[in-house]
Amino acid sequence: MLRSCTAALRTLRALRGRREGASPAARDPVLARRWFSTEKVIPKDHALPNPSWSKDLRLLFDQFMKKCEDGSWERLPSYKNSKLVKEQLSQAQLFTRGYEDGLGFEYVIFYNDDEKRTVCLFQGGPYLQGVPGFLHGGAIATMIDATVGMCAAIPGGIVMTANLNINFKRPIPLCSVVVINSQLDKIEGRKLFLSCNVRSVDEKILYSEATGLFIKLDPEKSLT
Amino acid sequence: MLRSCTAALRTLRALRGRREGASPAARDPVLARRWFSTEKVIPKDHALPNPSWSKDLRLLFDQFMKKCEDGSWERLPSYKNSKLVKEQLSQAQLFTRGYEDGLGFEYVIFYNDDEKRTVCLFQGGPYLQGVPGFLHGGAIATMIDATVGMCAAIPGGIVMTANLNINFKRPIPLCSVVVINSQLDKIEGRKLFLSCNVRSVDEKILYSEATGLFIKLDPEKSLT
Repeated sequence: MLRSCTAALRTLRALRGRREGASPAARDPVLARRWFSTEKVIPKDHALPNPSWSKDLRLLFDQFMKKCEDGSWERLPSYKNSKLVKEQLSQAQLFTRGYEDGLGFEYVIFYNDDEKRTVCLFQGGPYLQGVPGFLHGGAIATMIDATVGMCAAIPGGIVMTANLNINFKRPIPLCSVVVINSQLDKIEGRKLFLSCNVRSVDEKILYSEATGLFIKLDPEKSLT
Repeated sequence: MLRSCTAALRTLRALRGRREGASPAARDPVLARRWFSTEKVIPKDHALPNPSWSKDLRLLFDQFMKKCEDGSWERLPSYKNSKLVKEQLSQAQLFTRGYEDGLGFEYVIFYNDDEKRTVCLFQGGPYLQGVPGFLHGGAIATMIDATVGMCAAIPGGIVMTANLNINFKRPIPLCSVVVINSQLDKIEGRKLFLSCNVRSVDEKILYSEATGLFIKLDPEKSLT
């Protein structure tokens, strides 16, 4: 799938020059407004704790926010609407942010630029059910796509998912927290090769493994 | 992912003995209630037209309903809740049926037993957006998983998705209708090998191709 992160990249690059520890919007409200914004006011950043987050998810979030303090990791903000679509389809919104707090995808993605890695902390709510009591395979595929895609889009600019190959090893209990680790393994011309795994919080259970192939659509817009 | 279709299979098998052309619920309300039901009343079958369906989707639906008349194809009903989960998680509902009419996944799956094929007519609503104006890759993966999974579960009984390998060839415009064709290619012991493609209504555009590997979890419950 097409994945344009130009605005996100601009924001990230700007953030790197301003590591004061405040929230991205507070650090640069103009950039925050530009990024996936539909209105003149600062849009709501959904990659922050809300009352539906479990203790596990909050603990992990706090751990990663600590890692952000020295600038090795960045928390990636996440908004529901994009300006572009506002004009085309008034109801359009990002698939992964279309639910009330706690019912669907609760997640936050962190990025490590030196290691070209993303980590997604993900709590899949009761509306993401497949077989009774477990997450739908499509919901897992969705979060894998989002995590791997972000890992490709930050160094790659505008990229398109060409292939996703997912091995489902164990079903994920509904409403549990999992950690999705993704890394950029190789770049060959316009192709970016990435890999990914989905594990329990204690890392003991490997739920899924995946590889992703992304294609840079506009090499001139790459930021690396 | 785990996929249990025992109840669905029972219903389908029963339907095969009663091809009167009426809706499955009308033909056998007791079976319909049993299948993914949470209440004593007949649950709503979501695999039927609603006002959000586009002309394309309605036309295709009518064409496939015609094909159902001689019994070669069956329309598969689709419910939001399952009895089992009602006791565990009161809010739990099927991922693909968690939206108001027209906003998310509008789809109906038809099954051809002789050819071991499923066809899914799918209209992806505005809440399934990835890049502005296009469906999220995860939403496509979700409907591929649902279509291929049903094609595996009907002959295979209780099956688990072991692998999904998806090639995304072209982005799918938001709110358009696509046709997902899946077929069972091979059975080797407990392994079921399936393939799938996603095309435009006029079949001219190939949006995605995929393969799926499913594992039978309880061979004794297979109906074939």
